Amino acid sequence: MSHSAPDPNDAHGSVFDGLLDGSVGDASQWAFGTDFEDPLAGVDTTVPEGVDASALAAYCLMLGDDALVLSHRLSEWCSRAPDLEDDIALANIALDLLGQARLLLARAAAADPAVVPSLPAGSPVSPEDALAFFRDAQDFRNVRIAEVASGDFAHVVVRVLLVSAVRLALLGRLSQSRDTVLSAVAAKGVKELTYHRDYAGRWFLTLARGTEESRRRLVGALGLLWPLYAEMLTAHPLEVALAADGVGVDPRTVADEVDVVLEQVLAVSGVDRPDRGAMAGVSGRTGRDGLHTEVLSLMLAEMQVVARAHPEGRW
Amino acid sequence: MSHSAPDPNDAHGSVFDGLLDGSVGDASQWAFGTDFEDPLAGVDTTVPEGVDASALAAYCLMLGDDALVLSHRLSEWCSRAPDLEDDIALANIALDLLGQARLLLARAAAADPAVVPSLPAGSPVSPEDALAFFRDAQDFRNVRIAEVASGDFAHVVVRVLLVSAVRLALLGRLSQSRDTVLSAVAAKGVKELTYHRDYAGRWFLTLARGTEESRRRLVGALGLLWPLYAEMLTAHPLEVALAADGVGVDPRTVADEVDVVLEQVLAVSGVDRPDRGAMAGVSGRTGRDGLHTEVLSLMLAEMQVVARAHPEGRW
Repeated sequence: MSHSAPDPNDAHGSVFDGLLDGSVGDASQWAFGTDFEDPLAGVDTTVPEGVDASALAAYCLMLGDDALVLSHRLSEWCSRAPDLEDDIALANIALDLLGQARLLLARAAAADPAVVPSLPAGSPVSPEDALAFFRDAQDFRNVRIAEVASGDFAHVVVRVLLVSAVRLALLGRLSQSRDTVLSAVAAKGVKELTYHRDYAGRWFLTLARGTEESRRRLVGALGLLWPLYAEMLTAHPLEVALAADGVGVDPRTVADEVDVVLEQVLAVSGVDRPDRGAMAGVSGRTGRDGLHTEVLSLMLAEMQVVARAHPEGRW
Repeated sequence: MSHSAPDPNDAHGSVFDGLLDGSVGDASQWAFGTDFEDPLAGVDTTVPEGVDASALAAYCLMLGDDALVLSHRLSEWCSRAPDLEDDIALANIALDLLGQARLLLARAAAADPAVVPSLPAGSPVSPEDALAFFRDAQDFRNVRIAEVASGDFAHVVVRVLLVSAVRLALLGRLSQSRDTVLSAVAAKGVKELTYHRDYAGRWFLTLARGTEESRRRLVGALGLLWPLYAEMLTAHPLEVALAADGVGVDPRTVADEVDVVLEQVLAVSGVDRPDRGAMAGVSGRTGRDGLHTEVLSLMLAEMQVVARAHPEGRW
């Protein structure tokens, strides 16, 4: 659980006595947004010296959108998995990613308010919510492997394995970022992604060594997702620039490390590495520039419908 | 997070070295179920002396089905909430309930294997999964407030408030149950439900004091759900019998305690308590006996489709 557990001795006491304290005392917030908590409350959000604020914001959107979009795709699988344990595991993973997304979008907005879609004056929508719910597909900067439509369970496994292997390596480096928000988010994320990668790795092996059918599906999903894996290890100019500033990570610098991990999984599973050729196709604009497959628009339409129907508040 | 965080120092090590150890070494399990973990591993599942095993199993199904069905209803809202914070909060609550359900269904199966739907010999489906995915609506023993279709956000708030207020009181008593599994599940659940009730209580107040529209919707949802609230406080003969055995709780014995809590929320929110008359209508068969609204069948069809399509395994 990501929330802190209250004292169980208070369980039957009057937890509502505090309802009227200052935390909900601002009438202008009532019924709008939640605003119970600023995700970056108490954190120093000063942009590190010498760093371009708009580049930092865009970079946070890249990492945040990866997490937000994949979280939504995984939540589509929640409560449809064939057993309770995997329901729980996928929900946990989706929740971790959603938490990362929220912090990263909040950090983007704090670094450069200009990235936040403009809403009517006085709108109660928080900056991170405006970024999540009021941007169109072309403004999303996620890699495309996060957005493609969910397939069968093998597809879920391969996607989580590839994304978490890369993201874990990136966040491992980012925990040393000069940006204190990024380093804090990364340090927390490393623990979460280690679990995600391990979960997916175990299932990869299980499916590879299962039945002919499970292996066929696994290899199929790997072939389908492999070309998109390359995009994650392609450097966007912004990533290169921020890496030089000691704030971001150039994905090319973690490619070997990720490769070793995936090679282990493939070897132990007896699955051939897909043709290296498939990795060579990424050039020019990518998801990082807002180039997406058409399914992202459909996914966002579903994700954003409630928020957009009521931009002024909840109703 | 409910999973234990691995040592972050291992994050870039070879976590897959362990893949071939005994935990996945049984070929008969591969590609079927997850079977990585027995939810009750290491727990003494002996039925306490003098307790009827089938009654205990049925009682665990009641409490487990309440959690399973409401978890599914909440997961329908996840990633559709209008802001990230509530997405996260609802996902957390759904996940807590799913975890409670899994343990309670496993406990039901361990107490009396006869409650588990029979699957083909050698089926890899775990007992708790068979209970979740291979029972029809008339075999579910949840209260009906858990199953009614989700409405707007006010409906979510009122449902979580009413269910968690009652469930918290029940689990508070159950933490003293003579059944060691029930007492352990209850002790953990108390911490979770305290958060759920507090979350819903805060939102109840927020909506009550928000706009005219938010208040109108809140009062509407309260009126809609109030008659179903009564069912939760009605005693099924099994509950009475198990309470006498020191294993279960008679819901009537927590009615006053729950009432005090709800009275506080209503008072602070300035919302009238719905007509007491509406609470008097529960008699005869209830959800505890398998009497459900037709929407439960529809919900189960969706929840169970993947598992039922492949009763022999994952594909």
